[in-house]
Amino acid sequence: MNEAVFFKRKAKINLYKYFKNLKKKIVLSNIKTLPQASSSDLTFLDSIKYIDQASTTKAKFCLTNEKLKKYLPSNCEAIISKKVLFDLARILKDIYPDADIDHPDQSLKDSKKFKYSKVKFGNNVFIGKKVKIGKESEIGSGCIIESNVIIGKNSIIGSHVHIKNSIIGDNVVIQSGCKIGMKGFGFIPLERTNFKFPHIGSVIIKNNVEMASNCTIDRGSVDNTIIGENTYLDNQVHIAHNVKIGKNCMIAGQVGFAGSTTVGNNVSIGGQAGISGHLKIGNNVKIGGGSGVVKDIEDNKIVMGYPAKDLREFVKEIKK
Amino acid sequence: MNEAVFFKRKAKINLYKYFKNLKKKIVLSNIKTLPQASSSDLTFLDSIKYIDQASTTKAKFCLTNEKLKKYLPSNCEAIISKKVLFDLARILKDIYPDADIDHPDQSLKDSKKFKYSKVKFGNNVFIGKKVKIGKESEIGSGCIIESNVIIGKNSIIGSHVHIKNSIIGDNVVIQSGCKIGMKGFGFIPLERTNFKFPHIGSVIIKNNVEMASNCTIDRGSVDNTIIGENTYLDNQVHIAHNVKIGKNCMIAGQVGFAGSTTVGNNVSIGGQAGISGHLKIGNNVKIGGGSGVVKDIEDNKIVMGYPAKDLREFVKEIKK
Amino acid sequence: MNEAVFFKRKAKINLYKYFKNLKKKIVLSNIKTLPQASSSDLTFLDSIKYIDQASTTKAKFCLTNEKLKKYLPSNCEAIISKKVLFDLARILKDIYPDADIDHPDQSLKDSKKFKYSKVKFGNNVFIGKKVKIGKESEIGSGCIIESNVIIGKNSIIGSHVHIKNSIIGDNVVIQSGCKIGMKGFGFIPLERTNFKFPHIGSVIIKNNVEMASNCTIDRGSVDNTIIGENTYLDNQVHIAHNVKIGKNCMIAGQVGFAGSTTVGNNVSIGGQAGISGHLKIGNNVKIGGGSGVVKDIEDNKIVMGYPAKDLREFVKEIKK
Repeated sequence: MNEAVFFKRKAKINLYKYFKNLKKKIVLSNIKTLPQASSSDLTFLDSIKYIDQASTTKAKFCLTNEKLKKYLPSNCEAIISKKVLFDLARILKDIYPDADIDHPDQSLKDSKKFKYSKVKFGNNVFIGKKVKIGKESEIGSGCIIESNVIIGKNSIIGSHVHIKNSIIGDNVVIQSGCKIGMKGFGFIPLERTNFKFPHIGSVIIKNNVEMASNCTIDRGSVDNTIIGENTYLDNQVHIAHNVKIGKNCMIAGQVGFAGSTTVGNNVSIGGQAGISGHLKIGNNVKIGGGSGVVKDIEDNKIVMGYPAKDLREFVKEIKK
Repeated sequence: MNEAVFFKRKAKINLYKYFKNLKKKIVLSNIKTLPQASSSDLTFLDSIKYIDQASTTKAKFCLTNEKLKKYLPSNCEAIISKKVLFDLARILKDIYPDADIDHPDQSLKDSKKFKYSKVKFGNNVFIGKKVKIGKESEIGSGCIIESNVIIGKNSIIGSHVHIKNSIIGDNVVIQSGCKIGMKGFGFIPLERTNFKFPHIGSVIIKNNVEMASNCTIDRGSVDNTIIGENTYLDNQVHIAHNVKIGKNCMIAGQVGFAGSTTVGNNVSIGGQAGISGHLKIGNNVKIGGGSGVVKDIEDNKIVMGYPAKDLREFVKEIKK
Repeated sequence: MNEAVFFKRKAKINLYKYFKNLKKKIVLSNIKTLPQASSSDLTFLDSIKYIDQASTTKAKFCLTNEKLKKYLPSNCEAIISKKVLFDLARILKDIYPDADIDHPDQSLKDSKKFKYSKVKFGNNVFIGKKVKIGKESEIGSGCIIESNVIIGKNSIIGSHVHIKNSIIGDNVVIQSGCKIGMKGFGFIPLERTNFKFPHIGSVIIKNNVEMASNCTIDRGSVDNTIIGENTYLDNQVHIAHNVKIGKNCMIAGQVGFAGSTTVGNNVSIGGQAGISGHLKIGNNVKIGGGSGVVKDIEDNKIVMGYPAKDLREFVKEIKK
């Protein structure tokens, strides 16, 4: 799968601009997550859930708070903030000024003006700049594919689908009305005007994925949102920013994921289940329909209920 | 925010037409809710939930039943009906014959035929008559903005959005696939053909609101549906007719509201929660994800569960 | 209501191709459900839920397994399979090669190129071959009506609606953003690439149905998906393949049905309720909002809860 650049960084990060008490001038090139940051990037640690990732980061500077700074490795200097996510959002907004609102792509042109080899387009398909679409793919009427999106070979897109900031694999099926790659639900609540959290991440949909109608898959904030190979989604599934779903999963209708949760391989989730944010769901897990998952789930577990618990326990309780 | 007229009244209300036992001829100009009615309007009282509003109405005539008539003030005469809502619907249908079905707007024209100052349009944007759109606003491809809609300044609308009967403020963001201002889910059940309840209300979206993809916001029936300033909605939220949401609320993905509920300011609602109809949710309330709210909630409460209860009680019970 | 052919059978079924141990050559004309099969069709029995239907089938050959074969009547020979649904899918794929992926209809043309008597079209409505639309119907802007679809008289379709493989009655209202007749969520899970279950069924929407915005109604797999007369659906309802809903039902916002469930007449279902697959819900049933229905429900019952139980029992338990 190729690389795509959806947001251009407009400036480097001069940390002194935000943290006047810094003793030296620090200029960094980008903001990345703990595992992805290189020594020239700023990273961030805002929750105890990510201290394992912190311990191995290659970043030299990490935005964090007084409580969490002790979890940083010796190679990584803490930049102390009282509002880590707000400062992160402010810096992101300065260096990626267009990532906080989904401005419609003004470069869209009718697909008839492009030459894609062996791609079938419906009517009124509008395509942005530098979009790549593989052979034997079909794009239904009324679709909008914004600039720099990549779609693989033999992928079938229904009608009224809007895709931006996304990299989509081969043999993928996306039914009608899906909205993929929009900004996620992230902001810093403020009294008069919330501060919108810039979303510089992408949506990555791997080979052989199938997604039914009217699903919404938001792009990542700093990280990416990922749907693994051969995973199938039913109608009206909602996947929030930074969620990572493994291979061979089955996700039934109207399931919703809050942000930043990771799901293993071979996971099946019944209709209308909800999965809270920042959780880790193991491999081969089965989640019953209508469940509300609020805790991590180990490999091979079967859970059901609100809040979700071991299936045998759930069955025992409802028989009382 | 300006006034807009979405439905034209075609006739005055001759009450004798519907109530043959009336002792005098009564002609009224319109139908309005208890707080909004003037002395020339007909109002209605069909539930004990609204007796407070009844006590201060300025209407001289109120459609109600035998049980509720005692709650009307002395200035207001009861027009007794055995089926208040059905009679209300019949009168509305006579004076607003086109408000019961969402006929597509036949006056739509390509946005290229209009001159809006400093507004950017995508492709195939279709606009009705007398639509107002403020400066610096952007409307994405495939949008439909029906006649008389008002959109403020600097508002960003995604693609495949359909807006009718709505007044939208400044700095509003509406992502792709939202359907705003459609007729709500109201009808009188009848054996062969339900009687569709005319919806003459609007949707009012205040400044700085953000709404994610594929949300549905129905217009009010006699009243309006309102989303307050700086309130943010995640993907696939469903807001039914006459719902009023305050300022600075955060409403996560797939939350649903039944009709006529009011929500205060600074309320946060977790994903997939459902709020029943005709409730009053106070200020600063927090509702956990997946909750089912079936009762009013006082200011500052934190609730969770199905049915929703005080969070401490919910936590105690699940630990049993 | 007329007959429509959405998928053309490309071959007959030579059973020996799939079952090498057959003692004689058997060629059948089609695959049908137990009640619909004639003596020249292959039918299938894969669950004990359908043994009543099996007892009266007219089919001479039935794909089933060792455990279930005893439920077949004497006129019907068991074709034994270890993976009934997988073999069924393989045969369907051979005889209906295009029913497993929703390829966009390449024959669509602008509605302006057609002559329908007394039908009003919005802008950019695209219509396939042999579509029938009755008088006084209206189709909103951006709709896609694929080949062979039938829409009755006086039916109103909103905007951004996509309809395929469907037969829609008279006086039907379908609001914006609905996706009707797409392939359902059916597949045989395989390690590298799931086997997509061909969906050769249709969606049948009877007279006087109303459906609010952004609903998704999947077509049947071998059977049809049916919505009965005068049944009303609120926004964002999800109806899976083969579901059959009776007359005069009221289904509130965000309700979801898993596949193959049947619902009687006069059933009301509160918002966000979920109904599991392969259930039988009786007549005059009331299901409370947010319920999770996992068992059959007899006529006239009122249920609520997760899992749903008799309302009085639910109320008693929550008062404990």
